[in-house]
Amino acid sequence: MRTSLRGQVDPFIVMDVMQAAARAEAQGRHIIHMEVGQPGTPAPQGARDALARALEQPLGYTVALGLPALRQGIADLYHRWYGVDLDPARVVVTPGSSGAFILAFSALFDAGDRVAMGDPGYPSYRQILRAMSLTPVGIPTRAEDRYQPRPTDLPDAQGLILASPGNPSGTVLSLAELRALMDAAAARGMTVISDEIYHGLSYGARCHSALEVGDEVIVINSFSKYFSMTGWRVGWMVVPDPMIRTVERLAQNLFICPPHASQVAALAALDCVEEAEANLRVYSENRRLMLEGLPRAGFDRIAPPEGAFYVYADVAHLTDDSRAFAAEILEKAGVAVTPGLDFDAARGGRTLRFSYARATEDIAEGLRRLTDFMAAR
Amino acid sequence: MRTSLRGQVDPFIVMDVMQAAARAEAQGRHIIHMEVGQPGTPAPQGARDALARALEQPLGYTVALGLPALRQGIADLYHRWYGVDLDPARVVVTPGSSGAFILAFSALFDAGDRVAMGDPGYPSYRQILRAMSLTPVGIPTRAEDRYQPRPTDLPDAQGLILASPGNPSGTVLSLAELRALMDAAAARGMTVISDEIYHGLSYGARCHSALEVGDEVIVINSFSKYFSMTGWRVGWMVVPDPMIRTVERLAQNLFICPPHASQVAALAALDCVEEAEANLRVYSENRRLMLEGLPRAGFDRIAPPEGAFYVYADVAHLTDDSRAFAAEILEKAGVAVTPGLDFDAARGGRTLRFSYARATEDIAEGLRRLTDFMAAR
Repeated sequence: MRTSLRGQVDPFIVMDVMQAAARAEAQGRHIIHMEVGQPGTPAPQGARDALARALEQPLGYTVALGLPALRQGIADLYHRWYGVDLDPARVVVTPGSSGAFILAFSALFDAGDRVAMGDPGYPSYRQILRAMSLTPVGIPTRAEDRYQPRPTDLPDAQGLILASPGNPSGTVLSLAELRALMDAAAARGMTVISDEIYHGLSYGARCHSALEVGDEVIVINSFSKYFSMTGWRVGWMVVPDPMIRTVERLAQNLFICPPHASQVAALAALDCVEEAEANLRVYSENRRLMLEGLPRAGFDRIAPPEGAFYVYADVAHLTDDSRAFAAEILEKAGVAVTPGLDFDAARGGRTLRFSYARATEDIAEGLRRLTDFMAAR
Repeated sequence: MRTSLRGQVDPFIVMDVMQAAARAEAQGRHIIHMEVGQPGTPAPQGARDALARALEQPLGYTVALGLPALRQGIADLYHRWYGVDLDPARVVVTPGSSGAFILAFSALFDAGDRVAMGDPGYPSYRQILRAMSLTPVGIPTRAEDRYQPRPTDLPDAQGLILASPGNPSGTVLSLAELRALMDAAAARGMTVISDEIYHGLSYGARCHSALEVGDEVIVINSFSKYFSMTGWRVGWMVVPDPMIRTVERLAQNLFICPPHASQVAALAALDCVEEAEANLRVYSENRRLMLEGLPRAGFDRIAPPEGAFYVYADVAHLTDDSRAFAAEILEKAGVAVTPGLDFDAARGGRTLRFSYARATEDIAEGLRRLTDFMAAR
């Protein structure tokens, strides 16, 4: 059987944890899930109600760039969140942020081009790039920089992916930091792709969009996290004016359109601010518990998780094999966590990611178990 | 602004027709739509009911290869339709057949590889290939071969896309023809991708799946056409055993999962045979009207449309500028049709595609208008 080189992307190591957790649950054990990167809550009620009402319509193809009302609603969000006036013509609705990355990489880069990103980072950046015959270039970041790259760190590459809040770190770039990175990238001729998928989920100062710095950037976001709609596969990108036509043609051919039912739900979700903010309050309380409980349990080397719903912990004093350590935590504590290897192949053997996206009672119970586990170790 | 070479894919020429049709409708004109490639009917009632019931669930990410019950249901369909016993582990649920092509091309081919397909053909084959730095190689087909390639026509390439029923031709490969093409491809070391998206929509002998010939093939299908679920973006592929793991990793990274809500609807759609067959009876009657009415109107050089819901007409005796001709038909007859240029850049200036996917009364009215238009010409 023929196989391509580019198809040989890395497996997710967390999948081993998830399968082991599922096996344990099948055997009747109760597992606390701190490995998953998604809310336990459904899409907002208003979003589900809107779809229920729309189910009598044909819900055929939409135009490739998405329902005009949804593009307008997303543009309005930029005014609401950032005070930015955004032409809805620049908003492209996509099949999840995944679809946005595929469109951005296709529109910007040719085979062999290099695209840089901070390590640790979201593993699919690298794998999507590889599957498209592009070369991911990791920028090793430092704990003292909150795992965000320095402007002076930028390598020779055609593109730069920024992520704020970061995954797995949860750390947020200030407007000044964002500007410094974008300026440095521009000076080196690098096109910036700003992953803002966790915007809305921040616990101190609000998150800043790259669009507050300038228009020569591709911004990617999604309804998955703040709006609690992971499985719906609806995200968006904001592109500079000259890119719209290119992205439209690519979207017509690569995806035809984002899922229509999900677009209907997403449009209504934009108005479900109260429910989204209620979820945020849960994450905020979870985060408070984590910041208190994790150090107490012995996980005290953590980046300040200013956004998203993750805590990235340096566990070098405990292990240099995070995969085995995660397996041990699952086995002995009944808590599923993600080994850092998925996010940083070079150094992730000495880190773990804890997610606090689920219900507060689960987080509290998980922390109790982690504390007991570490005390007995 | 940076742009890639691979991002410069061709526009759909039919979009000009659709925009002109929308403008005419905005001015109060009544337009018959024979340009669109999708049913006018909604998803089956049972599919919509199932989703309505599921809306209280979180509908988060599913596993990357799709809901196990849906994969099993699709495997069962191969028994029902073709008498083929298919291991559900080989079924991959995808975000539309578009997602399946992206996964197949990523898993099989590296940048610079060549993939062949018959001309005329579905335009996005070429554009997806280009966006992935692959080289589409057209095989000019002949009207006397019902616009399907001959085994002796195969060029030097790593891959071959077969389409039966074809789009735009609607013609169907017999089992013997399919086997001859697959054998010829195997002899040349070409991997076959069989696009079976219009299966279920045939009007004489049933369509044969490439899986009836052998297992060393990638089969692509979708809920869009027979199950009338275009905008839901849920399709599938069947891959050989050794490819499953590769496709799973690619799917995890490129798409995370197909839209969950659409998977719930698709699972229920599999049982909505009566509604799907009722739609088929409408297409069958539409086809009868088309085969009677188009030649009477003067469009008499047509491939036998044995499947799908298209008629591809050679209009070389009428024009060598199908784009202008389609514009004239829209303007004077109020019927939107697709210029052949989208399907065959070299020869499509002398062809048109008529779709008969809509309601029978629209088809009858469209044929009346085409007859009057041609009589007055």
